[in-house]
Amino acid sequence: MATQKNITSSRISKIQDSRKLIPTVDELTLGILKSDKTALARAITLVESTKQENLEKANAIIENCLAKKTDSIRIGITGVPGVGKSTFIESFGKQLTSLGKKVAVLAVDPTSTETKGSILGDKTRMQELVKDEKAFIRPSPSGISLGGVTRKTRETIILCEAAGYDVILVETVGVGQSETAVHSMVDFFLLLKLPGAGDELQGIKRGIIEMADAIVINKADGDNVKRARNASIEFSRALHLYPPKVNGWTPKVLSCSSIENTGLDKIWEMILNYILENKASNFFNSKRQKQNKNWLLQTLDDQLKQQFYQDKKVAKALEKLIEDVINNRISPFRAAEKLLRAHHK
Amino acid sequence: MATQKNITSSRISKIQDSRKLIPTVDELTLGILKSDKTALARAITLVESTKQENLEKANAIIENCLAKKTDSIRIGITGVPGVGKSTFIESFGKQLTSLGKKVAVLAVDPTSTETKGSILGDKTRMQELVKDEKAFIRPSPSGISLGGVTRKTRETIILCEAAGYDVILVETVGVGQSETAVHSMVDFFLLLKLPGAGDELQGIKRGIIEMADAIVINKADGDNVKRARNASIEFSRALHLYPPKVNGWTPKVLSCSSIENTGLDKIWEMILNYILENKASNFFNSKRQKQNKNWLLQTLDDQLKQQFYQDKKVAKALEKLIEDVINNRISPFRAAEKLLRAHHK
Repeated sequence: MATQKNITSSRISKIQDSRKLIPTVDELTLGILKSDKTALARAITLVESTKQENLEKANAIIENCLAKKTDSIRIGITGVPGVGKSTFIESFGKQLTSLGKKVAVLAVDPTSTETKGSILGDKTRMQELVKDEKAFIRPSPSGISLGGVTRKTRETIILCEAAGYDVILVETVGVGQSETAVHSMVDFFLLLKLPGAGDELQGIKRGIIEMADAIVINKADGDNVKRARNASIEFSRALHLYPPKVNGWTPKVLSCSSIENTGLDKIWEMILNYILENKASNFFNSKRQKQNKNWLLQTLDDQLKQQFYQDKKVAKALEKLIEDVINNRISPFRAAEKLLRAHHK
Repeated sequence: MATQKNITSSRISKIQDSRKLIPTVDELTLGILKSDKTALARAITLVESTKQENLEKANAIIENCLAKKTDSIRIGITGVPGVGKSTFIESFGKQLTSLGKKVAVLAVDPTSTETKGSILGDKTRMQELVKDEKAFIRPSPSGISLGGVTRKTRETIILCEAAGYDVILVETVGVGQSETAVHSMVDFFLLLKLPGAGDELQGIKRGIIEMADAIVINKADGDNVKRARNASIEFSRALHLYPPKVNGWTPKVLSCSSIENTGLDKIWEMILNYILENKASNFFNSKRQKQNKNWLLQTLDDQLKQQFYQDKKVAKALEKLIEDVINNRISPFRAAEKLLRAHHK
């Protein structure tokens, strides 16, 4: 009995110790503002958590971080698997840190569980950048839906910016809805292509080309140089078929080699020009404001649905009503009415 | 004073008379079941109405109609403006009515207010079919969002089927999300193309080709015959690049001339084969059941949002909170929380 008591009290003190180790909202916020990578990583883990208590902490930290005025540039990078996104980000990231910029790399990859082409899943693919003091790399949160990933990524951007990262690179794989999501949270959207392959073969959807602020032809090295030049002319011509962008920007086509480190400076120059132009016209700011508003509306949609489907009265009635609707026993509208009434009771 | 009284009472009796003229739910249901086109058209008008009292009537009629077992075939038809959708539908429709089928033509055209390429807006484009006793043509409801159009179209399909129409042709313009919507409510999805123009030029998105159960090359007449043959070979080859359909169906490529009335019989034969095959494997039925289920879930989403945003407490708080979110004074999650709390209070 006495032994048991001892064990219990030692257990309690262990738990108390571990509790002390969980940093508070204030500790994490201060850590982030001091650009402490460990605090940043821990805060992101909180953000990615689905536990209610962690969510509340995460929201508080986000709110603290939102208050910090920053001067960041958010760049979305997409392209089909094989186009060399990781190598490009590694080289481009190194280019930026060599200019004194602090760079954060995030990933939106809702498909990683289905396809094997996971992005950023393996940090070792960016060996140089990972070792760079000025870089912070965070792989995609796994096991959550696109909506979830989007939410986490937006929040993570805020945290990285508060931690002093100047350039946020958001990587996504060019196969689904994730581009639209990433496009809705960045200032500049960059589409990577290979020299010499048609759109159909590259699996690029028309809508994604429309979203691009620039097309960068990667792997323009060795035997590819000539093909890259031809592709560049072709893409420039193709881009002219699209209506002009709201901000008056004409999407550019550039080439680069991530291996030979050529063309990367021109890409950065182009992005800086874009940002300057758009800040001067106030488009930059109004776009961010619009993105914030959409972020709210999307959050509302998500939460509304979540509250509804987690309601036990709804869950109980839903199964039977789905059966009825499937077999034409009741119209979807009548069924919806019943479920909404159950929810609001 | 006496005159005034007389006017008033004559007005009242006029109103009473006109009220008598508004058919009841039972009258409309019976009219539809007797295949009365006037009753059908009136019921669709009720379905398209946004007035609460009309909605309730509409729902009751839908429910009555859902109870009727029918053996209809729902066909979605898409293609960019200029591909000849109206002419195709006119010729194909006439082909079907000549075989004794009753044909209803509906349109999903959420873009008609923006672009000028309205579909079915001008019934005179189908002069022959309009005069056909066995055909019923209903233009797209105007001035409502895609979600709204979709909802109305689904309901209209149910009404037409109860009125004894064997084949429902749902026309949509190949430029936006409307294809996905139409695809989700038909048994067979047909993509019209022109001979000799590439995908990029035809403005067809890759996702739409993936949805197609058949590609029909229209205007395969005169000088186009050879080009149509080449296009047919090309498209067949392109289709093989896509993964096979869940039901094992390999999308077919056919040619036709809506002007010379050639190839239309082969298209109908192909569709009938598809239906036979899919009924035998029970895919037909399980697809319709899945569509019904999605219809319910979509209705729930729509209604949830509608109730939320129409809530005066929400509307009152929303404007201010959007301002706060836009200016980074509050996080979208905190703002969403506040709005949801206001809604449930």
